[in-house]
Amino acid sequence: VFLVEESDARGAIAPRRSDTHKGSYGHVLVVAGSHGKSGAAAMSALGALRGGAGLVTVATRSEVVESVLGHTPEVMGWPLENRGPLGMADLEPLLAAADKKDVLVVGPGIPRGEETVKLLGTLLSRVEAPAVLDADALNAVATDLEVLRRAKGPLVLTPHPGEMSRLTGVPTKDLQKARVEVARDFARTHGVTLVLKGARTLVAHHDGSVYVNPTGNPGMATGGMGDVLSGLLGALLGQGLKLPEAAWTAVYAHGLSGDLMVARRGRLGLIATDVAKGLCNVWTRWNR
Amino acid sequence: VFLVEESDARGAIAPRRSDTHKGSYGHVLVVAGSHGKSGAAAMSALGALRGGAGLVTVATRSEVVESVLGHTPEVMGWPLENRGPLGMADLEPLLAAADKKDVLVVGPGIPRGEETVKLLGTLLSRVEAPAVLDADALNAVATDLEVLRRAKGPLVLTPHPGEMSRLTGVPTKDLQKARVEVARDFARTHGVTLVLKGARTLVAHHDGSVYVNPTGNPGMATGGMGDVLSGLLGALLGQGLKLPEAAWTAVYAHGLSGDLMVARRGRLGLIATDVAKGLCNVWTRWNR
Amino acid sequence: VFLVEESDARGAIAPRRSDTHKGSYGHVLVVAGSHGKSGAAAMSALGALRGGAGLVTVATRSEVVESVLGHTPEVMGWPLENRGPLGMADLEPLLAAADKKDVLVVGPGIPRGEETVKLLGTLLSRVEAPAVLDADALNAVATDLEVLRRAKGPLVLTPHPGEMSRLTGVPTKDLQKARVEVARDFARTHGVTLVLKGARTLVAHHDGSVYVNPTGNPGMATGGMGDVLSGLLGALLGQGLKLPEAAWTAVYAHGLSGDLMVARRGRLGLIATDVAKGLCNVWTRWNR
Amino acid sequence: VFLVEESDARGAIAPRRSDTHKGSYGHVLVVAGSHGKSGAAAMSALGALRGGAGLVTVATRSEVVESVLGHTPEVMGWPLENRGPLGMADLEPLLAAADKKDVLVVGPGIPRGEETVKLLGTLLSRVEAPAVLDADALNAVATDLEVLRRAKGPLVLTPHPGEMSRLTGVPTKDLQKARVEVARDFARTHGVTLVLKGARTLVAHHDGSVYVNPTGNPGMATGGMGDVLSGLLGALLGQGLKLPEAAWTAVYAHGLSGDLMVARRGRLGLIATDVAKGLCNVWTRWNR
Repeated sequence: VFLVEESDARGAIAPRRSDTHKGSYGHVLVVAGSHGKSGAAAMSALGALRGGAGLVTVATRSEVVESVLGHTPEVMGWPLENRGPLGMADLEPLLAAADKKDVLVVGPGIPRGEETVKLLGTLLSRVEAPAVLDADALNAVATDLEVLRRAKGPLVLTPHPGEMSRLTGVPTKDLQKARVEVARDFARTHGVTLVLKGARTLVAHHDGSVYVNPTGNPGMATGGMGDVLSGLLGALLGQGLKLPEAAWTAVYAHGLSGDLMVARRGRLGLIATDVAKGLCNVWTRWNR
Repeated sequence: VFLVEESDARGAIAPRRSDTHKGSYGHVLVVAGSHGKSGAAAMSALGALRGGAGLVTVATRSEVVESVLGHTPEVMGWPLENRGPLGMADLEPLLAAADKKDVLVVGPGIPRGEETVKLLGTLLSRVEAPAVLDADALNAVATDLEVLRRAKGPLVLTPHPGEMSRLTGVPTKDLQKARVEVARDFARTHGVTLVLKGARTLVAHHDGSVYVNPTGNPGMATGGMGDVLSGLLGALLGQGLKLPEAAWTAVYAHGLSGDLMVARRGRLGLIATDVAKGLCNVWTRWNR
Repeated sequence: VFLVEESDARGAIAPRRSDTHKGSYGHVLVVAGSHGKSGAAAMSALGALRGGAGLVTVATRSEVVESVLGHTPEVMGWPLENRGPLGMADLEPLLAAADKKDVLVVGPGIPRGEETVKLLGTLLSRVEAPAVLDADALNAVATDLEVLRRAKGPLVLTPHPGEMSRLTGVPTKDLQKARVEVARDFARTHGVTLVLKGARTLVAHHDGSVYVNPTGNPGMATGGMGDVLSGLLGALLGQGLKLPEAAWTAVYAHGLSGDLMVARRGRLGLIATDVAKGLCNVWTRWNR
Repeated sequence: VFLVEESDARGAIAPRRSDTHKGSYGHVLVVAGSHGKSGAAAMSALGALRGGAGLVTVATRSEVVESVLGHTPEVMGWPLENRGPLGMADLEPLLAAADKKDVLVVGPGIPRGEETVKLLGTLLSRVEAPAVLDADALNAVATDLEVLRRAKGPLVLTPHPGEMSRLTGVPTKDLQKARVEVARDFARTHGVTLVLKGARTLVAHHDGSVYVNPTGNPGMATGGMGDVLSGLLGALLGQGLKLPEAAWTAVYAHGLSGDLMVARRGRLGLIATDVAKGLCNVWTRWNR
């Protein structure tokens, strides 16, 4: 079990070379959002942009595309023309959306239904890019963990303890007493990288290594923080960081942004977009 | 009659423990907003978020859900699919929305009609969580005060003098001459906590205790300030503060935020979202 | 011809008394906006809010109500359910909207058609509150100046030289050579207060007095500045300032806000909402 | 080949005279945006506004007009009532939109189809104002370069290397090895000004002169930066700068804004609207 140090996280991100362009920093596809949860997509996309992504496209139900874009004009929308929960009818549009993307972030605020797990399983089995599974993508995958094994590219899962409980069947209370063991076991068994969120977020890789994150604070215990993290993690993968480094670097930077914001603005009123916007404080501190 | 002091308000909010998560700080359900008054819902939700709520969901007419979320992506929407004024057809959707919520904030900008009072009465009689009634929820309830007695959970009402006049039948002028008495009498008679807003906001509890708030200023005499207060009060209740402490703490913090902002930006141009955003100055000052 | 001095403008706004509430500072009705020009309504409403209005309601085509509110949640919307240019079918809805309002601001971005002048004439003949006519309300009124005489309440017109040319038939070039005379003559003839915008904005009152404004700068030569001014002027009228004081105070404060912003941010990139938000610098400087 | 120096760029923008108005600084027509790419239009319009344009109108599909305006209320919308890709059915509406405009910016996020090149060719052959062609307007024009010769007014094209490759048929790799020659040749052959973006952006004019820009940094390698540049360039043309000065001044200021922002906020999290908003730092530094 490794403790992530600031020099590790800083060192994982290479300084930018001058002869680069937006294509050098990755195109992130965020599959997220629905009517009433458009903000989740917007926050994940913002996390990706503020995390250095070259381009960010959000694939979401057509009716909320403009709502998502309304928060951040730098984001592009990929309208999914069907209605209702994500299902097999969305496969072709999502495969088209995923074409030439460097990384997928799937889950924040998606409309989930019975077919969602089958859709995600098929999608992941046909896309080579690394994928971050978060929020309702985790809840969907929990119903059939075989989809993890069938994924063509590397997978990162970012559950909070409640979602981890659904993934493993272990009650949250028990899980919290054996976080390292449960996380390591899951990562190994399913061949993924697992980010188990909470007071001391863990990153467990399928090679058995486990990383403990020292940053973050209880002011971050508020809605949307996870969406920002999944976007940031997608951005780092898109910039070429490998796993598990990308995961523990994202977690470290996300928590540090929260710590720097809280020092200035208190704990109680911190909200998720503060942490996304505050990432610039981390990059400045790291000269990145 | 007690004068609330800063140490009281600060002391009512416990420092956050590190082993907590968003579930520890409450899920606030805001029932608010309508076409033309979507901003009221947005401001109440923002007050809740900047007041430290773990999660905030706004139940509102489907047509304005995305407008409400457009202001603050951290907010989730619960679309109410009927049309027109809130009525009994909204009962089941609202009961579903209220499930597993820690507190309700009801009223800012709701579409009010004949059935609204019956709806609110039935809703409150079936929900155990504490509820804050504000704005048009007060005007609805004023037509049948029996709904207050039938409420299952603790109630806080936050009228300004005009709304208080409708609740009591006492002309505003007379009411303003006897604020303490009128407020205490109402709180006792109806078994609620009453926040009577105005130049010196009062909190009257059903046990007969009355609290006078010293913060706030006439720069805050502008639309939406009450919406922010109701959201903040909901956030504090959701974080486990009890009544009447939650009420006088919210009122104190809200007024202090306004005072700190006015010192920086003058009185005339202060607007409600300034006070919501400025809550971070209070939390920093209080180390919370 | 008087030169407005800072002490005059500052002195025209009384310090706020502590025993006041939002009703003390006026409810401004802004009649503005249309599809493609929703921003004009938003900027006028923002000018009113940042100018100290107690409440601001925007009456606008239903289809753009939420667009207008999307910029500033403190604003309320009054949906006008008809379609197309403003005409007599909008009279009753507008009379209802104007009920209990303290001041009207009419014109920014309204959909103008043949019937608009008749509508405005009838509306103004039946509303006692003072009214600010701006932008396309001026272009409508230019086709029948009799509507000015029939107005029940005091009127302020805020044309730029092009609009003044349409109001008077005097070519812009000639008009600019005789600004004082043209403005004074128009104000006297039509019994109004006239704000003739430009490099040195003039305020001419129907009593023959003329006031020259020394603030403002060419960085303010960009779209929307007039919308902010009309809202600010409405706010001051709603706070009880009389004419012509309200007019030259608004013009002075608006230009001073622009001057203070330009000193910080340069001329080229100044935009109208900067000046609206920057009003707080004026109020702080004036201790108001 | 000239290296642009700061004094050149600063000197190209005249200080503003006090006897000017919004008409003095040009009305920019931005033809941009579509469902899912409304942000591109918003960013280009913001670049124009923060670049000093007197007025900015965005012509875009009616369904996204309000989305575009939602980002910046100072922008006006010109709804294009047809549906689908831009084609000949949009000619008359666009000619009407272009009437009395001082400059056109065409391309960011437009819906492109088979007829788009014909539409653009016809439009440009009938409009005298200078035009900036960017993004998908370049991809359309690449299919028939004859449209460049038929343009009535001066043209500036702003391709990144991928778009330049499509314009010339030269593979990106080869093109990047001979940037000066390829750019100069294209500008001469087609009688245009060419802005070839990249690590050292070049401006090539049809008289054979080539200008190298020294500002900018790899933090700007993220989506939307080009949209902001095209809007800024439109604003400078609208303010009366001539070609090629307008082009290398815009490129210099855009890069300098990025450099100043990166010094404050790091590279990784820089986004396009930061650079648009940050133009004020350039104007302040240049006393413009």
